[in-house]
Amino acid sequence: MQYRLEHRSKKGKARAGKLVTDHGEVETPIFMPVGTQGTVKTLSPKELTENGVQIILGNTYHLYLRPGSDLIAGFGGLHRFMNWNRPILTDSGGYQVFSLNELRQLDEDGVTFRSHLDGSRNRFTPEIVIDIQRQIGSDIMMVLDECTPWPCTPEYAEKSNDLTLRWAQRAREYWEKTTGLHGYSQALFGIVQGSVYPQLREQSARNLIDLDFPGYAIGGLAVGEPKSDMASMTDLCTDILPENKPRYLMGVGMPEDILESIALGVDMFDCVIPTRNARNGTVFTSEGRLIIKAARNKESKLPVDPECSCYTCKNFSRGYIRHLFNSGEILGLRLATEHNIHFYMKLVRDARVHIVNNTFEKWKTERISKWKQNNQLSEE
Amino acid sequence: MQYRLEHRSKKGKARAGKLVTDHGEVETPIFMPVGTQGTVKTLSPKELTENGVQIILGNTYHLYLRPGSDLIAGFGGLHRFMNWNRPILTDSGGYQVFSLNELRQLDEDGVTFRSHLDGSRNRFTPEIVIDIQRQIGSDIMMVLDECTPWPCTPEYAEKSNDLTLRWAQRAREYWEKTTGLHGYSQALFGIVQGSVYPQLREQSARNLIDLDFPGYAIGGLAVGEPKSDMASMTDLCTDILPENKPRYLMGVGMPEDILESIALGVDMFDCVIPTRNARNGTVFTSEGRLIIKAARNKESKLPVDPECSCYTCKNFSRGYIRHLFNSGEILGLRLATEHNIHFYMKLVRDARVHIVNNTFEKWKTERISKWKQNNQLSEE
Repeated sequence: MQYRLEHRSKKGKARAGKLVTDHGEVETPIFMPVGTQGTVKTLSPKELTENGVQIILGNTYHLYLRPGSDLIAGFGGLHRFMNWNRPILTDSGGYQVFSLNELRQLDEDGVTFRSHLDGSRNRFTPEIVIDIQRQIGSDIMMVLDECTPWPCTPEYAEKSNDLTLRWAQRAREYWEKTTGLHGYSQALFGIVQGSVYPQLREQSARNLIDLDFPGYAIGGLAVGEPKSDMASMTDLCTDILPENKPRYLMGVGMPEDILESIALGVDMFDCVIPTRNARNGTVFTSEGRLIIKAARNKESKLPVDPECSCYTCKNFSRGYIRHLFNSGEILGLRLATEHNIHFYMKLVRDARVHIVNNTFEKWKTERISKWKQNNQLSEE
Repeated sequence: MQYRLEHRSKKGKARAGKLVTDHGEVETPIFMPVGTQGTVKTLSPKELTENGVQIILGNTYHLYLRPGSDLIAGFGGLHRFMNWNRPILTDSGGYQVFSLNELRQLDEDGVTFRSHLDGSRNRFTPEIVIDIQRQIGSDIMMVLDECTPWPCTPEYAEKSNDLTLRWAQRAREYWEKTTGLHGYSQALFGIVQGSVYPQLREQSARNLIDLDFPGYAIGGLAVGEPKSDMASMTDLCTDILPENKPRYLMGVGMPEDILESIALGVDMFDCVIPTRNARNGTVFTSEGRLIIKAARNKESKLPVDPECSCYTCKNFSRGYIRHLFNSGEILGLRLATEHNIHFYMKLVRDARVHIVNNTFEKWKTERISKWKQNNQLSEE
């Protein structure tokens, strides 16, 4: 995998670039829809492509437990299994082990946990999760880390940070020694941790840089900390991380968080918000958020977003989609999801154009202030 | 609405024809997927078109209760509301009132029932259900009838038959006096009842013919009676019904029932089987039925049906679709539904070609015997 930095914002740190993988190129900044169980919920691969999706995220934890990474390997990898021919990034599974499993047992070598599906005992180590990701065959793999919760004491954060670094080193070495099973190359990203403590973040970033990963993620944010902490930690990390490597802010986020983080020099994002909120009936529009089930939409012949050109907005009214939600019809979930994914993909595409044209900062400020105004109005 | 009889099978009673409506033509024999609540469950209108759907069925009872036929009228009718520009047939709502409502009260003038959604009191009369269908704006409306259950005594069947006939007469008159609200014409079909009693069926058919409807349905079958009764009643009706009017066998059915009924001169079918069975994980193939969740499909790289050219079969394996079902993923429901609808549409399209080529009887017998053989095998 290669990263090409193509343009830096004249004002600020926003950047436009390109990831080159064996499954094609990805223009950054990019948003990666989440395909937890080998499908971006409710959508077909054709719809992902039609809405400009360039890369998706798969969850190692979920795929390992069901259908099993060995089964996926038998199908020639996740791309073939789910019929998605563009790049895939997989997380390491660590986040799910630490957030879903109350009974996990952490030791120096790895972590033992019980499956949320059948209670079976399983073990992840830095090496095992690379083996699993080799079976899955993602274009970008992530190292196993401990994602610290928020709040978190400085003592725990430091101890965790040290373990995460030792794991990163083992992962980096194991990655070097192994090769892909499916005939294409797989990159490995390190993950900067350190909670909300600047010194730990800096130490984590510098140590990972010494290990020379193909890319770097900023982890342990978007876990409940104040937005100002998310921004300052991100700012600090992107100041340290090398310019010639991609930066991925894990689990972010709302449209405004994405734009603010792009402004800080982040290239990659993933989040369940566009898909999960869609299934709960919240859609994102150029004017702010819209609660599709609201009574005021009952007779509305307007599309979800008059400025949007997605299949949903070109063909269906708010009133009809509201009816689908009220009736529990799957088409409602689909139409809302397709729209939200379209919205997110257009957002990062527009951001890229504005970065290249040196108009990003002004555009970003205008967008966010418009959304904030209208979201407040609609929630009153 | 016009019906043009284009070809009669040399052997037997199968026929090929065309329905001409203000929303376009429909080649018969035809299968109508069921869109109960203003959507064919899990599919988009684009997918219906791509899979050869020419006409869909809407349920008056459901649409009247939610979102309300007045609301649909405000959107310019169901076609615009749901973005479906081809013909729509609506049932009268009678079937749902009689099958879903334990507490309905039947009288000479109509039927009073409680909504299954909120318990509200509602009333259907022959005139009211035409008003509702005028609001919905279907191309083909159905008269209100009492769909007799099975089994049913000859005494009850006769009494019910007489009431259904008086209602049909009122509906016919009311239809003549009213016009469409949305700028196009709406036909009205009579419904032959009479349970499994030949004399009653004959009487019902002859009386309806005297009323001169644009088309005739055969109702009260596929409600639990033996298949031989379904066939003999259908055979009797199509012997009596006029050649220059379409015949619609309501609520049928399995692929083999459709072929057997086409052989008896039926032109139109509707049924929830392809969509409902898909959501339960049963798919129809050229080799018979397939239970997608079966363990034997776990590692199968085969498509659902190697002979099928639908989106599902061209792009996904049985193993992947099984994983989607096991994981509760909506894409599984979609892929199975799209395949089954494709299968049903191809079935009636193929039937039509064989009728025109005078090869229908032989083809039908071969198909059915192949399915029966393989279904037995797969259920062992």
